This record gives sequence, C-alpha cells and structure tokens, in this order.
Amino acid sequence: MKHITINGDRLWQSLMTMAKIGATEKGGCCRLTLTDLDKEARDLFVQWCEEAGCTVTVDQVGNIFARRPGRHNDLPPIMTGSHLDTQPTGGKFDGVFGVLAGLEVLRTLQDHNVETKAPVEVSVWTNEEGSRFAPAMMGSGVVAGRFTLEEILAKTDIDGKLFGEELKRIGYAGELPARQRPIGAFFEAHIEQGPYLEAEKKTIGVVNKGQGQRWYDVTITGRESHAGTTPMPLRHDALAAAARLINQVERIANTNQPHACGTVGFLQVHPNSRNTIPGQVTMSVDLRHPDDTILSKMDRELKVFCEHLPAEVNVEVKLEPIWYYAPVIFSEQCINAVREGARTHGYSHMDIFAGAGHDACYIADFAPASMIFIPCENGISHNEIENAEAADIIAGCNVLLSAMLERANA
Amino acid sequence: MKHITINGDRLWQSLMTMAKIGATEKGGCCRLTLTDLDKEARDLFVQWCEEAGCTVTVDQVGNIFARRPGRHNDLPPIMTGSHLDTQPTGGKFDGVFGVLAGLEVLRTLQDHNVETKAPVEVSVWTNEEGSRFAPAMMGSGVVAGRFTLEEILAKTDIDGKLFGEELKRIGYAGELPARQRPIGAFFEAHIEQGPYLEAEKKTIGVVNKGQGQRWYDVTITGRESHAGTTPMPLRHDALAAAARLINQVERIANTNQPHACGTVGFLQVHPNSRNTIPGQVTMSVDLRHPDDTILSKMDRELKVFCEHLPAEVNVEVKLEPIWYYAPVIFSEQCINAVREGARTHGYSHMDIFAGAGHDACYIADFAPASMIFIPCENGISHNEIENAEAADIIAGCNVLLSAMLERANA
Repeated sequence: MKHITINGDRLWQSLMTMAKIGATEKGGCCRLTLTDLDKEARDLFVQWCEEAGCTVTVDQVGNIFARRPGRHNDLPPIMTGSHLDTQPTGGKFDGVFGVLAGLEVLRTLQDHNVETKAPVEVSVWTNEEGSRFAPAMMGSGVVAGRFTLEEILAKTDIDGKLFGEELKRIGYAGELPARQRPIGAFFEAHIEQGPYLEAEKKTIGVVNKGQGQRWYDVTITGRESHAGTTPMPLRHDALAAAARLINQVERIANTNQPHACGTVGFLQVHPNSRNTIPGQVTMSVDLRHPDDTILSKMDRELKVFCEHLPAEVNVEVKLEPIWYYAPVIFSEQCINAVREGARTHGYSHMDIFAGAGHDACYIADFAPASMIFIPCENGISHNEIENAEAADIIAGCNVLLSAMLERANA
Repeated sequence: MKHITINGDRLWQSLMTMAKIGATEKGGCCRLTLTDLDKEARDLFVQWCEEAGCTVTVDQVGNIFARRPGRHNDLPPIMTGSHLDTQPTGGKFDGVFGVLAGLEVLRTLQDHNVETKAPVEVSVWTNEEGSRFAPAMMGSGVVAGRFTLEEILAKTDIDGKLFGEELKRIGYAGELPARQRPIGAFFEAHIEQGPYLEAEKKTIGVVNKGQGQRWYDVTITGRESHAGTTPMPLRHDALAAAARLINQVERIANTNQPHACGTVGFLQVHPNSRNTIPGQVTMSVDLRHPDDTILSKMDRELKVFCEHLPAEVNVEVKLEPIWYYAPVIFSEQCINAVREGARTHGYSHMDIFAGAGHDACYIADFAPASMIFIPCENGISHNEIENAEAADIIAGCNVLLSAMLERANA
C-alpha cells in the first residue's frame, strides 16, 4: 500500500489543547489520576475518537479503548496507547504523546480512507504514573493480571480516598472486563525521558528492553523529644536515620553503574516541627536496573543496610517491598516493525532500553509489544519544563503509523 | 510571715481539665497557637483568674496578665507565667504547668487572705512553641523588644495565614502596649524537658542559665526529573543533598560535646512523588549550646558546610539564619529566692541550665528573672507521652509560691 504520513499540525494542536487541562504556571501539567482534571482529559479524548468514527469502550479499571474496525474484525486488534495522567509537576508530553499519536494515526487512516485488515485500537491506561495511588501502571497491570481488580479498587491516596470510589466519581468505572484479551500487536510511542537519543543525535529510539524496577515503602520509627533538652546520645532521631538511608540508596546506585538508578522521591516527617526531634519518617525507595541479576544484588544491599541501621541509630526500620517487575524483553516482530518504520521515513534511529516503567511493559506479558522513543530536551521529564521538538513528535507518530499498518495488514 | 503551701489536688485537677482542650489519643495535647483550641484554653484561664479575684488585661501581641493587687500597687509587680500553646504532638505539662502553678499561687494567696506588699501577676505568653509561626517565644520577645510588633503580626503559618489576623480572629488582640514595663521579679516554673534532675534524683532544678540557640531555614534547589531515566551522574537531587546536611548537623553537635545539640525537625520535599527526583527541599536547622563561643563555632561549621555542598551535589543551597539568642544569665536575687524556696520546703535541689528557650529568657532582658525546674519522666517532652509526677508538680508550685512571696514582700 502507498506510503502515507500523519498531519503534524493537527497532532501538535491536539497536544497543546490537551496540555491546557491541568496546565501549570511553569508550562507543565498537574493532572493526577482520577481527579476532575483527569476526567476532563478523558472526556476530550473520547469526544475526539468518536469524531474520528471510532467506537469507545471503558473497562472495569477505567482503561479506555477507541476501536476503528478493519476488514476482518474477528482478528485481534493492532493496538497503541499510553496514559493521560501526569506527575504532580509533570510535563505536556509524557504519556499524552503516546495517546494522541494513536489518535492521529486513527485520524490519518480516516483522512485517507485506509481500510486495514485487522481492526486498530487506541488505548488510554489508568494511573500510569502511580503518584496519587501507588503502585504505577495500575490499568495495564490489572489487564495483564499483575494485580487483581479488587486490590486496585481498594487502594487509597494520601487523603484516604479509595481508588474505586474516585473511579466511579469521575464516571470511568466501565463494564468491559479488565483482563487479558487477544491483541495482535501493541505499540507505545513515548518521549525517551532520558539523555541518550539527544546525546547520540538520533530521532527514533527502537526500544528492545524495559528496565527492571523494585519499589519499597520505608517507615522509620524513633522517639519524639525536645530538640534543646535531649542530649545527642539519648536521641532516637527518625530523620537522622532516614538521611543515612537516603545516602545509602544513592551509594547502591553509584556502585552498580552503568544503568543503575536509586531514588528517594517521597519523604514525610512526623511531627515535622523545627524544635521537636522527628519521631517518625515514612519514605519511598525506587531501585532500577535493566539486568535482573544486578537489580537483585541492589535489593539485597538495601535489605542488609536496613537490617543494620537500627543498631546504629536507635530507631526501628520497616522496609516493605511494594512492587517488583523484572526487565521486559519486547517482541522481535514489533521491534522490527518499528525499525522498518524509521527506515521507511528515513529517520535516524538506534536501539535503546526503556528506563521508566510503561504500560507496554505489562501488555508485553500477553501480547507482542514494543515502544517507539523520541528525544526530549536534556532528557528531562517528570518536570514542568519537559520539552520535545515538533519535528520529533511528528517523526515518532509517522513511525507508529507505519508500524501499525505493517502489523494490521500482515 | 507563716509558711503556707499550695493546694496540690486543685492544681492537678486544673492541669487535667486544661489538658482536655486539644487532648490527643496518646494522652498528649495538640493546641497550636492562635487556633480555636488556643482561644478555648485562654478563655478558661481568664475565667479561673477572674474567679480568683484578679483583673485581667491583654496586650497587643495577645499576652495575658492576671493581676492580684498588693498593699503598694505603685510597686512593680512580682510576676510568674509561661505559655498555653503546645507542639503538634506535645504533652500536658510543657508551659501549662508554669501558667497553672501561677494561678494556684494566686488561689492560695486568696485562700489565706495573704496581702503582699507588691502586686502579683500571672502571665500567659503568646506562641512560645514557634511550631505554627516561627520563631518561638514571640509574645515575650515582642515585650522584651527582641521583635517589633509589626514584624510579628506579619508572620504567616504554612497555609499563609497571618499571625495578626489569627490573633484578632480568636479575640486576643488586646489594647495594652506590648513593650517593656517595670517587673520586680519574674519566675517561670517548668518541667525540665531533659534527663538531668531524674538522673540526679533531685526534685527542684535551680535554673541559673539559659542555653544559646541559633535557628536557620534552609532551601535546597536541585532539578526535578524522572527517577528511572536520569543517570546518576546527571542528577540534581535536592533530597540527597539534604540528607548530607542532616548528617552534618548531627556531626556538628556530636563534635561539640558536652551540651551541644543539633536538630533538623522540619523538612518538606517537592514535588514529593516516589518516581520523581526531588527538585526542592525546605528544612529547618536548630543549633544550641550554653557557651556562646562554642555556639558561634557550630554556626561557622554549618555555614562552611553549606558553602561547599553545591559543588559536591549539583544543587543550590540557601542557608538563612532566622533566629539567634545568646545564652542567658539569670538574676542572682531570683536564683537565690528559688534555692531558698526549695530549702524552706525541704526539697532536694541542684543548679541546672535551661536547654530549651523559655519566655523567662526574654523577660531576663529587662527584669530580674529565673526559673524553677521539676523532673519529667525520662526527660521526654514535645511528645504526647510527656509526663511529670504530681508530687514534683506540687513541689515546684510550693517553691514558686515561696519565691514570689519572698520577692513580693522584700
């Protein structure tokens, strides 16, 4: 079939329109999952899909599927998609690009009256970010069977609000069973969120692997007492202990280079008063590595440190692993379709691994999947200044179009 | 005059009644300054004082004065007092004991129809704790001239609420000018909040000194980015930098023993999301020492560390000294009156210094002052489990009565 291309201006305009929902002063987005803003973004996406002639269904965990029929609608769909929720101080492209690139593919097929052999679907996955409700990637995780629907509906945010209640409240608790179903191929277009494509001056990242991750909740319990009258040797300072752990997480990552990451992104102090020695600290730990052997080694190093910390600083330390996923190997068929797409359009490209968790990593559990990366400025994301070039956005979407067409007509 | 004693049951009952206002599940109190609970506590105190035949006045910063006339009301009053506000997870005795011990002295003088030569006053000082509005000891600080009324009324809490507005809201923005006036002697009875009296098995601490303090606000600015895709060497992690500073504050205190204290009690992370590298951390630092030379050395050590931190971890560090007061030397006359009071009642006693800041330390700027300490269980305060023995409470109040009578009739 002839080699068509997407409408770059339309894609860019859609991105900028969507970015107004939850727009922050610094040019980013704060659109936390299952909030009124998330509902507004979902409603706009659904409206756009229906205007593009698609049928929209929603499953029990709030995932949205916009379907464009093919010649053989009994064939498993060729699917793309990502997420519309953002970090508290997130950007305009993380997730949203993958969703609206999918929409642009649908619109382009419409423009050119292309009839595919298999049906084509664009999906929006619920709570990919995991910042309001942990863990991340809940929507794709439930469908893949990584989590049960029940456990996810019962999750609470920091104010104690229930995931299930919030999902109903915004009107996205759907009927469709949230479970595995046949998918012919799944592609997720996404900004790299890292520095490699930019450094190598490549337009397209052909993603062949997803990095492994381990998430933990840590509770350090000491004893509150007066900051001026409690001699140093008699203290049970939960924050002083937390500081040692933060430094250790950094050390574990630095001693397992290249590629190891270790982060404490969340920390709360109780009672958090300047002249009271902190009695309790709750914090998160995030360890990542593309090689599972090294990730397990990092996990052991963290556990050993937490076992020895109490003796050193007179506190109790509770280390709770809350999430693990092993490195993901993507499908050769899909990886080749992406590489071929880049060649078709003459874009420079390189193989790369995904440093972040992505819905595609869970879909890969039960369907052939891979990802398409484009560069983002200085590799920065999860930040209001996150930025990507229109040219790269358009390139990524053209590669997605080609890869989906190749799979949809195979 | 004959040697009278206070009514211990009445004092204990008053303490327990006051403790119900803002009572916490764990048996402590959360009665933050200028809240509805603070108003409730103030109203009860005023009612009790009026029932004890006192005239009550309130000054422009919300300090309350309950006056019992003497034979010569042109003489400067003999005053006692402390505070009714507590830490977020404070106890039943810190501050409240000093206020209600003063009330019990008034009631006892009433019971025995004692007419003193000089008038006697009991004071409640606004925002001693400094946890809702920093710095601490605002009420006594304004009267002493350490702060201007204007700067204090303009202070804001973490929600941006104005001190001046909140003071009006609870109805304690009084008429009396908040400035120095003649005071014959000032005594503050207080729990030690430290381990020394208990360790030495002494009932009364004759307080001869107040420890020096330096408070700082620190803002560490890094750069938010994705926890999974930002290689360790490219990070600007504000929390990793904060952890180094927390450890250093501890190190500064430990290397300046005995008596040095260093605490980070308050810390907030932004954006505080588990998979985003923290872009900013705001935190407090509290350094204390009874010897000003050593306190200045600690201050220099902190400043030098903060100057070198950015180079080490790619962040900006803003260290802002927000409060300093030099060690306080209390009045010989008052110290002797307290020691003599302990002897009169046959209580074991020792000289001791105040580790915490107290209103008496500011009153000492312009009037003869000292303090009376009693033991508290395990030296713990600023904690809901803060506890003191009724016997010690009563002993401290009897010493206060004797010391005030000695000064009031001198």
